[in-house]
Amino acid sequence: MSTIKPSLAKGTRDFSPSEMVKRNHIFDTIKTVFRKYGYAEIQTPAMENLSTLTGKYGDEGDKLIFKILNSGDYLSKANTTHLDAKDSNGLISSISEKALRYDLTVPFARYVVMHQNDIALPFKRFQVQPVWRADRPQKGRYREFYQCDVDVVGSDSLLNEAEFVLIYQEALSNLGMTDFTIKINNRKILSGIAEVIGKPELIIDMTVAIDKLDKIGFDGVTKELIERGFTAQDIELLKPVILLEGNNDSKLSSLKQVLAQSETGLKGIAEIETVFEYVKALLSASSVKHPDLELDITLARGLNYYTGCIFEVKTNEAAMGSIGGGGRYDDLTGMFGLKGLTGVGISFGADRIYDVMHELNLFPETTAAGTRVLISNFDDAAARYALPLLQKLREADIASELYPSSAKLKKQMGYADAKAIPYVVLIGSDEMDSGLLTLKDMQSGTQQKLSPDGIISFLTGE
Amino acid sequence: MSTIKPSLAKGTRDFSPSEMVKRNHIFDTIKTVFRKYGYAEIQTPAMENLSTLTGKYGDEGDKLIFKILNSGDYLSKANTTHLDAKDSNGLISSISEKALRYDLTVPFARYVVMHQNDIALPFKRFQVQPVWRADRPQKGRYREFYQCDVDVVGSDSLLNEAEFVLIYQEALSNLGMTDFTIKINNRKILSGIAEVIGKPELIIDMTVAIDKLDKIGFDGVTKELIERGFTAQDIELLKPVILLEGNNDSKLSSLKQVLAQSETGLKGIAEIETVFEYVKALLSASSVKHPDLELDITLARGLNYYTGCIFEVKTNEAAMGSIGGGGRYDDLTGMFGLKGLTGVGISFGADRIYDVMHELNLFPETTAAGTRVLISNFDDAAARYALPLLQKLREADIASELYPSSAKLKKQMGYADAKAIPYVVLIGSDEMDSGLLTLKDMQSGTQQKLSPDGIISFLTGE
Repeated sequence: MSTIKPSLAKGTRDFSPSEMVKRNHIFDTIKTVFRKYGYAEIQTPAMENLSTLTGKYGDEGDKLIFKILNSGDYLSKANTTHLDAKDSNGLISSISEKALRYDLTVPFARYVVMHQNDIALPFKRFQVQPVWRADRPQKGRYREFYQCDVDVVGSDSLLNEAEFVLIYQEALSNLGMTDFTIKINNRKILSGIAEVIGKPELIIDMTVAIDKLDKIGFDGVTKELIERGFTAQDIELLKPVILLEGNNDSKLSSLKQVLAQSETGLKGIAEIETVFEYVKALLSASSVKHPDLELDITLARGLNYYTGCIFEVKTNEAAMGSIGGGGRYDDLTGMFGLKGLTGVGISFGADRIYDVMHELNLFPETTAAGTRVLISNFDDAAARYALPLLQKLREADIASELYPSSAKLKKQMGYADAKAIPYVVLIGSDEMDSGLLTLKDMQSGTQQKLSPDGIISFLTGE
Repeated sequence: MSTIKPSLAKGTRDFSPSEMVKRNHIFDTIKTVFRKYGYAEIQTPAMENLSTLTGKYGDEGDKLIFKILNSGDYLSKANTTHLDAKDSNGLISSISEKALRYDLTVPFARYVVMHQNDIALPFKRFQVQPVWRADRPQKGRYREFYQCDVDVVGSDSLLNEAEFVLIYQEALSNLGMTDFTIKINNRKILSGIAEVIGKPELIIDMTVAIDKLDKIGFDGVTKELIERGFTAQDIELLKPVILLEGNNDSKLSSLKQVLAQSETGLKGIAEIETVFEYVKALLSASSVKHPDLELDITLARGLNYYTGCIFEVKTNEAAMGSIGGGGRYDDLTGMFGLKGLTGVGISFGADRIYDVMHELNLFPETTAAGTRVLISNFDDAAARYALPLLQKLREADIASELYPSSAKLKKQMGYADAKAIPYVVLIGSDEMDSGLLTLKDMQSGTQQKLSPDGIISFLTGE
């Protein structure tokens, strides 16, 4: 076995104890909210059959899926035509049967279809697991990262959409964020606009161009729209849409005029209005702050995919892209042959939320999660004296350690500092003689003499 | 996109909501104990560089590592000699740079070496993550399964070994197990025995043969020892070891006689005695049951690896192999060039523990983890009436749902049953008129009329 200098696979990360405490805080906070809204956790395997994943994410997505090499003599079953032609892409299906999941949505769809006889519809599930993508790593983009998805399948009620708004509001507030905007749009509104100007096929070009208003102004947007195939007449019709501003009510009333002739567009407006109403009704007797919920008709994430409401959340406290998003997709499970099941869901961008919380210093004091008491170890007699106390501390649910070997005080204190242990119990010959041990508060530096039971009472606050 | 019948990759599993509740119960219980003993969580990536893993698990192990195919035009860098010869094994290193982790120990060693300047020694970590092995799947053996490892590196104190005994005792007791045996052995005792009979190279053959005493009796063991290269004289020396019985004290005193001339062997005995003493001292002032701790000199798991104490836990309540094991390895990080760091650790077999708990019906009532209240939805007016109550229930930390669309009572009750929701609030026109809602206990079938606040008080027990 030759010695190699160890390194991480490109784009992957280790998480240290202090990072894990913070990550668990984020995941636990979000999961608690999911459960309160009636969502239950599932998990799916990291490895899926390659055929389950291929063709679901477009050609570019397919390239980013990590494929797993078949075990054993995989070349014996390799397609010889592809092999001789050194056709890397063509060869994949004959030497790789499995792949790492690319997101949590496709595995969820597979889950629903495979377990359709065991689940009660509507099926409300959340899933917090890593996914893998062979993207070029860069700041904030990793090849392994966690997704936190919450979806309901089998219910077309807009109550679900309204509850997702409140889930964002509650989870992000519980994490300490105070200023964030939940943007909402509806695919049907975008379809209606494209329909009204007679260019349904240019819906994406239209949305991309309008989205740039802030950066390039109305003239810039006009120029881009013309480049993308719109006429001056189209732009005249689009003008109220491009310049849409004001509060949600005024935006909706402008849109109603533009979309007066589009059944689809009016349906999209009605859906948004219903979501707004549900949110208002839910909070009508509550003291919870009404979410900053904003209709943004330039919001188009995953447009090919979504069929109804579309969500995205942005923090206004830090420079950061979206920290969450989602929407409704009318045919979630069709790809696996189960037609007519509608789904709607959102996800939280855990890595970005972590970065925002770090920047805003929103993580709570983490010492509570780690060891609370270190008992010193100056010699074997003191260590043996300490053992019953160590057990008692743990029986009182106080996370505790005895320094495992005799060592200089400085070294032991350094260990307590490195682990941010808030209390050290010092046991020397005086302490053993008197039965009164020295409890040192590492933050303040103060010391007091207490019996073993006194230490436990002090630490449990009894 | 063609429709395919979805299936799981061979040897992998989905976990349903009810399974997740049970699995989380196991993981949370074990993690809580780890933390109480001063261990902190880390996580490492699923993908490691293939060079980090290769050569650590023997030739058989290397074959069971799942390799990840390089992205892009991987054949352009493939070794042409291996390719032309269709040498599957030889080709791997030129078309695969990454692999899925095979266990948590090698990634932990890598972590310690890479982060050696950031961690305080002794470094006490736990890690609960899946691992992947290309084993042939069979009952109870999966290609993806979780390991729960707890290790300390950088401390040779036997206090660590004693604490691992208590960690097993506490975690398994907290899971509801009442009858399990923690077996302990020491590599130095086995080395001493092999040394005394002058056959140090046959240490594994000796251990394997002695281990069969229960099944094949003394004559059988003798026969097997002779087949494996031992002489009649050796067996005469081994006889007290093969027939070792009685309690730990009597076993230790027999072994002391056999090993009187072996310094290594006596050191192994002393180590075991110290662990026993520490366990006794820790529990000397406690009412916690003393663990069923048994010296078993046939215990040899991972013998090539361990250098000191060896552990294994067996339940006596169900027919099941070991549900945990571990030991000390004197040179954990040497494979990555950091010499002289000793480590000791144990792990819990979560899948087997799950099966034992299932068989013994040890899982607690799980309803507390899911939705507690379903509010019925008979029409739009009733649904809107319910929305403020729904919000209030959640603000009182009561996991609640409103059935998302109007449906027949039977369907809604079926949904509550399928999700094991214990309470249903029925809201019809009578209820809306009077303001007194019907709260139905789904277990007993009893109903009572309560105000919204009354429902919350009832459910929070205030």
